[in-house]
Amino acid sequence: MATRRHRRRRSRRAQGRLPASPATAAPPRPAILRLLGCDGERCEETTLTDPAALAAARSRWPVIWIDVEGLDDGPVNALLGQVFEIGDLALEDATTPDERPKLEVFGHQLLVAVRMVRFDDEAIVTDPVGLFLGDRHLITFRDRHTHDGFEGVRQRIRSGRTRLGREGADHLCALLLDAVVDGYFPVLEKFGERLEHLEDDAIDNPTRDALGRIHDVRTDLMTLRRALWPTRDVLHALGREQTPFVGDHARQHFRDCYDHTMELLDLMEGYREISSDLRDIYLASLNNRMNDVMKLLTVIATVFMPLTFITGWYGMNFDTASPWNLPLLRFPYGSLVAAAVMVLITVAMVAAFWRRGWLRRWH
Amino acid sequence: MATRRHRRRRSRRAQGRLPASPATAAPPRPAILRLLGCDGERCEETTLTDPAALAAARSRWPVIWIDVEGLDDGPVNALLGQVFEIGDLALEDATTPDERPKLEVFGHQLLVAVRMVRFDDEAIVTDPVGLFLGDRHLITFRDRHTHDGFEGVRQRIRSGRTRLGREGADHLCALLLDAVVDGYFPVLEKFGERLEHLEDDAIDNPTRDALGRIHDVRTDLMTLRRALWPTRDVLHALGREQTPFVGDHARQHFRDCYDHTMELLDLMEGYREISSDLRDIYLASLNNRMNDVMKLLTVIATVFMPLTFITGWYGMNFDTASPWNLPLLRFPYGSLVAAAVMVLITVAMVAAFWRRGWLRRWH
Amino acid sequence: MATRRHRRRRSRRAQGRLPASPATAAPPRPAILRLLGCDGERCEETTLTDPAALAAARSRWPVIWIDVEGLDDGPVNALLGQVFEIGDLALEDATTPDERPKLEVFGHQLLVAVRMVRFDDEAIVTDPVGLFLGDRHLITFRDRHTHDGFEGVRQRIRSGRTRLGREGADHLCALLLDAVVDGYFPVLEKFGERLEHLEDDAIDNPTRDALGRIHDVRTDLMTLRRALWPTRDVLHALGREQTPFVGDHARQHFRDCYDHTMELLDLMEGYREISSDLRDIYLASLNNRMNDVMKLLTVIATVFMPLTFITGWYGMNFDTASPWNLPLLRFPYGSLVAAAVMVLITVAMVAAFWRRGWLRRWH
Amino acid sequence: MATRRHRRRRSRRAQGRLPASPATAAPPRPAILRLLGCDGERCEETTLTDPAALAAARSRWPVIWIDVEGLDDGPVNALLGQVFEIGDLALEDATTPDERPKLEVFGHQLLVAVRMVRFDDEAIVTDPVGLFLGDRHLITFRDRHTHDGFEGVRQRIRSGRTRLGREGADHLCALLLDAVVDGYFPVLEKFGERLEHLEDDAIDNPTRDALGRIHDVRTDLMTLRRALWPTRDVLHALGREQTPFVGDHARQHFRDCYDHTMELLDLMEGYREISSDLRDIYLASLNNRMNDVMKLLTVIATVFMPLTFITGWYGMNFDTASPWNLPLLRFPYGSLVAAAVMVLITVAMVAAFWRRGWLRRWH
Amino acid sequence: MATRRHRRRRSRRAQGRLPASPATAAPPRPAILRLLGCDGERCEETTLTDPAALAAARSRWPVIWIDVEGLDDGPVNALLGQVFEIGDLALEDATTPDERPKLEVFGHQLLVAVRMVRFDDEAIVTDPVGLFLGDRHLITFRDRHTHDGFEGVRQRIRSGRTRLGREGADHLCALLLDAVVDGYFPVLEKFGERLEHLEDDAIDNPTRDALGRIHDVRTDLMTLRRALWPTRDVLHALGREQTPFVGDHARQHFRDCYDHTMELLDLMEGYREISSDLRDIYLASLNNRMNDVMKLLTVIATVFMPLTFITGWYGMNFDTASPWNLPLLRFPYGSLVAAAVMVLITVAMVAAFWRRGWLRRWH
Repeated sequence: MATRRHRRRRSRRAQGRLPASPATAAPPRPAILRLLGCDGERCEETTLTDPAALAAARSRWPVIWIDVEGLDDGPVNALLGQVFEIGDLALEDATTPDERPKLEVFGHQLLVAVRMVRFDDEAIVTDPVGLFLGDRHLITFRDRHTHDGFEGVRQRIRSGRTRLGREGADHLCALLLDAVVDGYFPVLEKFGERLEHLEDDAIDNPTRDALGRIHDVRTDLMTLRRALWPTRDVLHALGREQTPFVGDHARQHFRDCYDHTMELLDLMEGYREISSDLRDIYLASLNNRMNDVMKLLTVIATVFMPLTFITGWYGMNFDTASPWNLPLLRFPYGSLVAAAVMVLITVAMVAAFWRRGWLRRWH
Repeated sequence: MATRRHRRRRSRRAQGRLPASPATAAPPRPAILRLLGCDGERCEETTLTDPAALAAARSRWPVIWIDVEGLDDGPVNALLGQVFEIGDLALEDATTPDERPKLEVFGHQLLVAVRMVRFDDEAIVTDPVGLFLGDRHLITFRDRHTHDGFEGVRQRIRSGRTRLGREGADHLCALLLDAVVDGYFPVLEKFGERLEHLEDDAIDNPTRDALGRIHDVRTDLMTLRRALWPTRDVLHALGREQTPFVGDHARQHFRDCYDHTMELLDLMEGYREISSDLRDIYLASLNNRMNDVMKLLTVIATVFMPLTFITGWYGMNFDTASPWNLPLLRFPYGSLVAAAVMVLITVAMVAAFWRRGWLRRWH
Repeated sequence: MATRRHRRRRSRRAQGRLPASPATAAPPRPAILRLLGCDGERCEETTLTDPAALAAARSRWPVIWIDVEGLDDGPVNALLGQVFEIGDLALEDATTPDERPKLEVFGHQLLVAVRMVRFDDEAIVTDPVGLFLGDRHLITFRDRHTHDGFEGVRQRIRSGRTRLGREGADHLCALLLDAVVDGYFPVLEKFGERLEHLEDDAIDNPTRDALGRIHDVRTDLMTLRRALWPTRDVLHALGREQTPFVGDHARQHFRDCYDHTMELLDLMEGYREISSDLRDIYLASLNNRMNDVMKLLTVIATVFMPLTFITGWYGMNFDTASPWNLPLLRFPYGSLVAAAVMVLITVAMVAAFWRRGWLRRWH
Repeated sequence: MATRRHRRRRSRRAQGRLPASPATAAPPRPAILRLLGCDGERCEETTLTDPAALAAARSRWPVIWIDVEGLDDGPVNALLGQVFEIGDLALEDATTPDERPKLEVFGHQLLVAVRMVRFDDEAIVTDPVGLFLGDRHLITFRDRHTHDGFEGVRQRIRSGRTRLGREGADHLCALLLDAVVDGYFPVLEKFGERLEHLEDDAIDNPTRDALGRIHDVRTDLMTLRRALWPTRDVLHALGREQTPFVGDHARQHFRDCYDHTMELLDLMEGYREISSDLRDIYLASLNNRMNDVMKLLTVIATVFMPLTFITGWYGMNFDTASPWNLPLLRFPYGSLVAAAVMVLITVAMVAAFWRRGWLRRWH
Repeated sequence: MATRRHRRRRSRRAQGRLPASPATAAPPRPAILRLLGCDGERCEETTLTDPAALAAARSRWPVIWIDVEGLDDGPVNALLGQVFEIGDLALEDATTPDERPKLEVFGHQLLVAVRMVRFDDEAIVTDPVGLFLGDRHLITFRDRHTHDGFEGVRQRIRSGRTRLGREGADHLCALLLDAVVDGYFPVLEKFGERLEHLEDDAIDNPTRDALGRIHDVRTDLMTLRRALWPTRDVLHALGREQTPFVGDHARQHFRDCYDHTMELLDLMEGYREISSDLRDIYLASLNNRMNDVMKLLTVIATVFMPLTFITGWYGMNFDTASPWNLPLLRFPYGSLVAAAVMVLITVAMVAAFWRRGWLRRWH
């Protein structure tokens, strides 16, 4: 149990929940820039080794996607800010590890900040993804953990199913947000399974750490909620008509993502309620256990106390010369009579307990 | 108990709560297309075996209802999309098994997604129903389980009580949504009965699985709530003036459905509160039980401990030659005196317990 | 207890909570139509035996109130619908036994649906009242149980305090709704008394059925809430300026009713909180009881265990010929010494318990 | 405890929570009318003995404050209504003992209903205050208990710090409402102290009536909340620009009162949470106590049971002629050996319990 | 424990939660005025010893920041009010120790009231900070405890990173509010650590004061919430377009502060939930403990009761001359047989308990 909790704690630190925590001050690694430029005909993927080529790429392609893997490469970020005219505050918002999902208009582009979900050593972790959507470009900032989430979209473009040159950058943005939101579904499915296991345990086998595990589930749900509620607002805003840089088709797509987020939130709220129900069930099971223990104790005390009293009675040292003192002691079958009385008492008591249902259902 | 839970789980899977779950990947069966065309005079029902006849039917009848039983017949869906100009995203929304109720305008039609309720092996299951309402047509997508819900409307049309040719497709849509919403009432009525049984059990006979059954009720209520809350929003939107494709008369009808949904939600919230009250009552009953057990134990220990002490006292082996050591042992009626003292003590204690009310109300 | 619950259940059924329940399918009785026509000078009350006279009455009086006692007299309802041009849906809304309070504009009139409260065999029941307010007429639909609520208004008109011919139908409607809302006050006052009794019981005398009675109070509060919350919305809408058929004076009156409803809701929410506090107090009292029982058990066991041990010690059969084996047994005052030791131990223990406060406050 | 509750109940009745309760039907006493008229130069205070002088006073002074002490003097109220053109409904609203705080525009004036707080025999009571604010006059209706609250304002005017003739009636109204709101602060401060005492008790000394006292605090908080929440709305409305009869300067003042109300509500909600936390702490303390009792019982039973068994063992009457039967009995130091064994067992057990921490921390 | 609570209470008093509390009536100390004037080129810091120089400074510098340390220096406040045309009500709002965060427009300036957080002897305390933002000046009122919060901004200006003469007073205001909000992060981080410690304790080692410490955490969270929620509204208002005295650049900055506040509130709500989960876990751990104690008691009683019965049986004084009375007593190996039976019973019972898992997991 303790190990589990310690692990969680570590990963929580790593997740960078609190900006000022020293754990986030790791030495920055150089960012990887993946460039994908499209015109009406085709798309070309390159990994930019020389950031200076950015400006040229921007003017060459009608639609361009720059995917920056690594949030803390200062020079690269500064260059991007310069080429695409992104202000410092906006850049900081997109590259802070614990940024809350939000949507903001910054002059020539839209900043969309969301969070991608993954399992890290059983605990749920969300990583920040920052997107700048302009008229003809999309820039995404993310760290290494979020690689797989975007790879699917990349393959879709490679396969030609999506023609970026025609659809535009807003469509690409919708595809990526769709991938981000869809990434939550398997996580929630796993939650459902964890809760089902806990349900069985809480009722049939209320072990000592069940409550700790329920608490883990609830903490994870809180992490998810903190990521999903503002995401919902972001997608709602993207699906409205007034948002700039978003065309009709992409808007429809964003609205669809919004519906998915609502489903996720519905599921999540359901899980939250189930988890608090489980806690109550667990406590009731504990009570039931205590009840069983108490009943066993009571049965045993109740059966043996009269028996012990009888043995004590015939163990008294009264002068048996007197015919009035404990006459049974001198009776040849005295102890048999005493035994018979004891058996009778025991049978009567066991019968009474049986009728009351106390002898059934021992765990 | 375990069986019950396992059954629930299975059915929950079948219900397709989570889109990516492998259980939903069953092999698709061909959809059944029921066509109902009406003009001012009469209606004609046919089962379309050749989907190619769709376009002809569309142009022939002033009002047409196409009822598609089966959500996953790709070619049929594609054909419908083509004939009635429905986009891919819209079609997908209407045929996803776990779609959340919603209302959306797609070019030439309105997409209304709701959920129909039924009992599956004691657990509550909701099935998706997708409706496309156009100026002159209504297309409904649903799976096999929802058959009975629409049959009533069909018979109403057959009997001539409703003249579709005059009322229009929006009126048909209102009739169908009315049938969907009314289907929730018997389900909630059954809930009321379940809660009444649980009420009796929780107070009089707090068995071990009562809490599990209360939990089942709460999970079912959550399923209902997830289906009904967005349905309420859908009906609210349909009852407003701005919604296209909906005439005055149908709007009135939708508002009526909305009122029914509000009643359902009121009932449901009431049941939710009752169920959490029941949980508390159950726990209190458990506590009462424990109290009874403890009282019995205390009564027995309290009665026998002094008696056993007295027998121990006269069982000591002091030298009775001395007149100061346990003189009663040599008294001819000694044991009778001891017995009398014991009886007195017992009577006094029983009286004390009686006055305190501990001897009444054993379960 | 069981009886109480069974009674409640019966009455709940009678109340017609669920539309499809068979209990509501009682054979319809003919409705009683009371007509009250007023002109500027005077009012005339008649009981309409011939419904055909309705149309004549309508055209004769400037202001007319038709009070229909009985909700399910089909022909009468149909005639009223025809004379006053009320649509079928509207008529159905006004005469459904379990209608939720609402306000709706139907062409030439306003439908106001509210619920009147009464005690039925200790349980709280609410009966539907439907009012159609037109420019010059008011039609009220209600069943027998709601008779007394309207009789006060009738007498006020008879006494001439209210001049309907001048005030208009909207004023009459306000008077009637005022009577409906005021009917809730004595019910809530009775609630206050019930809660005070429960408060005493929960603290001083936590009997076994206190929790059941608290649950009854909560269920009744839920019934009230279901009736009052939508009533508040109805009165809020009637007090706004835009509502048709309502003049300035009546609007002021409706706003007053709205304030009363807010007071009722405040009270009700207070009672809800008190009732859940009481539940916690009750459970704590149970715990206190258990604590007392445990303390008694512990005191007795603690006092007698050492004593019993000493009697056992001197009851051992060691060979007392040896001067090392239990020398006290041969001492002439041995048993007195043993008794003295026992008394000392007992006194010491009782003193310790007394200091700890365990011997006070037995229930 | 019981006395406390009975007192509360009495005072709650006196407070007139429920309009129809017979306790409020006390015989009306004549109202006292205090008149304060101001012009640009000075103010004059008189107690009106002849109500007929009202009309003259109204026309004489540019700004006039009529303070009516006593709510139920029918003739005086009627006269006021006539002189200042107040309608019947408005008058009734201002003089009902259990009026909910509200703000309403009635033709020539504004009705402001608020509630003043005070302690009545330890319980919190709120008294109604009704204010009519016109262009040049302010009329206040209140009962005897609220005297002190207004006296401060009166002295401020006497001292010349406030020049009513220049500031106008709206400023006077703001001063009075300020006095009403500020009266809540000492009450809440006292709450803070009560909660601190309860905090100590709940943790260190969970006496039987702590829960009852927590419940009292919660009931009082509910009374406060019922008075303060609508007051907040009233002050919010008075601080908005559209409200008639309120000038810029007074508006600023009302906004300040509004801020104070928000602070009060913040404090109150905090106290509510603390009180429910205290309840949980109290219950946990009870559990801790039970735990201690159980541990004591277990220690005693565990220590004495083996000892008693040993005494029983050597108290058996086996034929000690046989060398195999209980040889120790014939050993000269037998009982010393037995005693040594017993001491060993006891020491081992006590050590085990000590290590487990059971022997520390007895209450 | 008691000490902790008493300390808290003292500091709570010092914090001046309640305006009328006597503790706040400390003798006023003279305020320290720090002046920072900037033009396009450079900034100059001085400590004003002669308040009369204020007016001159105001006219000399294009942008001026007057930082008043000490809230209750009447003459200085009056002078500031006069020079910068601040009304009395506004000044009072800015210098009240328990002012709630708010934003208000007062003629020529904006009043922004917020609260700075710090630890005082382990408890969380918030100190008021009042800012007046005019076109060309910023005045801040605060007490000594808030010194460090502003020093960072001052150093930033000294280092030339921020050019106040160009950015304007609104930018300075944004920097200061940023510092205030960022001050909450380390406090919340410490909260996270406290909760983690409590998490360990609640599960593994539910000591008696854990609940008191959880309660402390919750009280502190309430203090934070009371400070942060209205701060959020203030920053939301500052980030909107309509607010006067705020330029585009500062507005962006305020919006960023708003995002940080939202993050803080998210974290805080999470901690609140965790703390109430911890309480439940703690109570469950207590229950578990009780369960263990009961099981131990039951095991011991169950093992020894039959053994003691057997010793009692063979301690009875039946006449062993009769071959029917307790024949074993005369058997040479009788006591060995008895001992064997006892061992058998003990082994059987221990095995039963082992199988049931009762002998594992003693704490």
